[in-house]
Amino acid sequence: MAKLFFRYSAMNAGKSTSLLQIAYNYEEQGQRVQLYTARIDDRSGVGSIASRLGIQRQADTFDEHTDFEALLSAQASLACVLIDEAQFLQPEQVRQLHRIAHRANIPAICFGLRSDFQGKPFAGAAHLLTLADDIEEIKTICACGRKATMNVRVDDQGKRVREGAQIEIGGNDRYQQACARCFYEGTTDH
Amino acid sequence: MAKLFFRYSAMNAGKSTSLLQIAYNYEEQGQRVQLYTARIDDRSGVGSIASRLGIQRQADTFDEHTDFEALLSAQASLACVLIDEAQFLQPEQVRQLHRIAHRANIPAICFGLRSDFQGKPFAGAAHLLTLADDIEEIKTICACGRKATMNVRVDDQGKRVREGAQIEIGGNDRYQQACARCFYEGTTDH
Amino acid sequence: MAKLFFRYSAMNAGKSTSLLQIAYNYEEQGQRVQLYTARIDDRSGVGSIASRLGIQRQADTFDEHTDFEALLSAQASLACVLIDEAQFLQPEQVRQLHRIAHRANIPAICFGLRSDFQGKPFAGAAHLLTLADDIEEIKTICACGRKATMNVRVDDQGKRVREGAQIEIGGNDRYQQACARCFYEGTTDH
Amino acid sequence: MAKLFFRYSAMNAGKSTSLLQIAYNYEEQGQRVQLYTARIDDRSGVGSIASRLGIQRQADTFDEHTDFEALLSAQASLACVLIDEAQFLQPEQVRQLHRIAHRANIPAICFGLRSDFQGKPFAGAAHLLTLADDIEEIKTICACGRKATMNVRVDDQGKRVREGAQIEIGGNDRYQQACARCFYEGTTDH
Repeated sequence: MAKLFFRYSAMNAGKSTSLLQIAYNYEEQGQRVQLYTARIDDRSGVGSIASRLGIQRQADTFDEHTDFEALLSAQASLACVLIDEAQFLQPEQVRQLHRIAHRANIPAICFGLRSDFQGKPFAGAAHLLTLADDIEEIKTICACGRKATMNVRVDDQGKRVREGAQIEIGGNDRYQQACARCFYEGTTDH
Repeated sequence: MAKLFFRYSAMNAGKSTSLLQIAYNYEEQGQRVQLYTARIDDRSGVGSIASRLGIQRQADTFDEHTDFEALLSAQASLACVLIDEAQFLQPEQVRQLHRIAHRANIPAICFGLRSDFQGKPFAGAAHLLTLADDIEEIKTICACGRKATMNVRVDDQGKRVREGAQIEIGGNDRYQQACARCFYEGTTDH
Repeated sequence: MAKLFFRYSAMNAGKSTSLLQIAYNYEEQGQRVQLYTARIDDRSGVGSIASRLGIQRQADTFDEHTDFEALLSAQASLACVLIDEAQFLQPEQVRQLHRIAHRANIPAICFGLRSDFQGKPFAGAAHLLTLADDIEEIKTICACGRKATMNVRVDDQGKRVREGAQIEIGGNDRYQQACARCFYEGTTDH
Repeated sequence: MAKLFFRYSAMNAGKSTSLLQIAYNYEEQGQRVQLYTARIDDRSGVGSIASRLGIQRQADTFDEHTDFEALLSAQASLACVLIDEAQFLQPEQVRQLHRIAHRANIPAICFGLRSDFQGKPFAGAAHLLTLADDIEEIKTICACGRKATMNVRVDDQGKRVREGAQIEIGGNDRYQQACARCFYEGTTDH
């Protein structure tokens, strides 16, 4: 039986690297995978999954209108669906991926953040955490050395920003991972 | 550093047993724990945490007005907070428990369901999944033998109910765990 | 596909409770399980699995001559094998359980310690850790409050013992869990 | 408190990629890491950690005489030790790394295989599994599509080899990952 997987982490943990490795593993076995990333995320170009280690690859893009079930559930030869920036999925799309795993028997492996710069859930992530058959954290460290679980937004001067819209795509320098203690204490502030 | 823990499962996995074991482990070491369960859940009496294995123990109750941070963060001698039926927490209460762990250094271990009878998130569970430092599943099995991750509601005749309010406390016989395949196929129907 | 599971922990974490809960979960679904514990462990009577929470149940016993594959792999109606004190298994018996899972499709769930009072592997545990498809820790705490991962042996006066045979069955009071720091520092000494 | 980590997998899962990502994450935070790989493994040159994704980096080498405790425990500015091919560690070296984590407070993250081509433990891996504070599997797939947990050795013609020495370094084409069913059935045979 296929499963819905969610691999979550704070910013800058290596989610895209991990996704690209899994795609490589499947293809090395002669199996076909389908890659998606969020259209809204154009940091490395629209439809590109780029690792900070220097690896990059084109992917299909999804937005709020993408119907994964219609696109994927009839593809008998598809071994796996891999989705980056999965925090931007709509709740109904998470449900589609859950059904794709359990009715069409195609594994769906999603990578994404859990919480935004205010510590609030991304709706897509909250639904993935609710339905995923297998949840794993990709660990990374805060500037203070502790495990980072939260994210903070900074402005052009590197000063922490506490108010604003949930989604504001910026360079990697607009977001930083933080441990919960630094998140609450504000000690990641510059 | 203390952590916020979330142990989730479908119905009938042994969440209360696990909570009572952890309380026992702490107390055996001479440490003090505080137990809470949801006031709304009166299946085994208000303020009782009862395991299907036959173990039972009184606990404090929480409702939507409980201020965990005010009650707990100043209790220097408290080794651990244990919360059953944590899917009924308010989002702000999850945030309180997260701060209690990271600012007051008191571990908070929460046990609860992830999704309701329609596969939709409980708000408390979604926020626990978003903020918890450590997430683990307590596994149980569906009637078909596969791992159960979902829950279904049944009526007095054991017939599956698909519409209704999210929260409707009933005997254990009103809710059953199900694997995702049975959840979607309806094969847990009687 | 069935799996070989290993649930490990230090002393006094709740392994037997967890085993008895899983047996209950299967039987509640009308499924048949087979329970084993080590013949050598007679702390609560030969062939008894007893939880510190007060639950107890009879089980078959295994010793180094038990051939699990011969006994179990042909039992078509068996839903699950549950083994307590699994650190006392022989390496070849772990291999049998691995084949029972993957060839006879019967899940085997083993509970046990990882290391002895000197921090050395139990052979059965080392082979379970090597072959298990699913490994999980049952967490407990050291007297100092940190997570316990090690075990220490004490004598009748509660004084730590550092030399001796690997296996020496005693009351729960002959063994204590310890975190790695206390294990090395000797601060669990009385 | 620092921990000893063990990330295990079958062949060709992405262990080296994951190690190189973690090194990158630390260094991006301005922290210093020390990398080791087994001297015996010269597949990509002595002292090179190479990912199948195309990333490569030099590392120190260890052999059975390396004294990690003498080399590392006094390095106050060291944020993390990362060890590839950790199945080749000696048991006493695993103990050193455990003490480095718990006495010198330096995290040690080890990557390696669990079992050899006959399904027998590597001594280094067995001791890591016994002492590690945190164990995680890096998942990969068998040629049949199931999760791979085992390894098989093949000869120059790609034919499975069942007898021989435990350690025989060869190209990636001498070893293949396999699920337990294929491992026992021999269906990965060519």
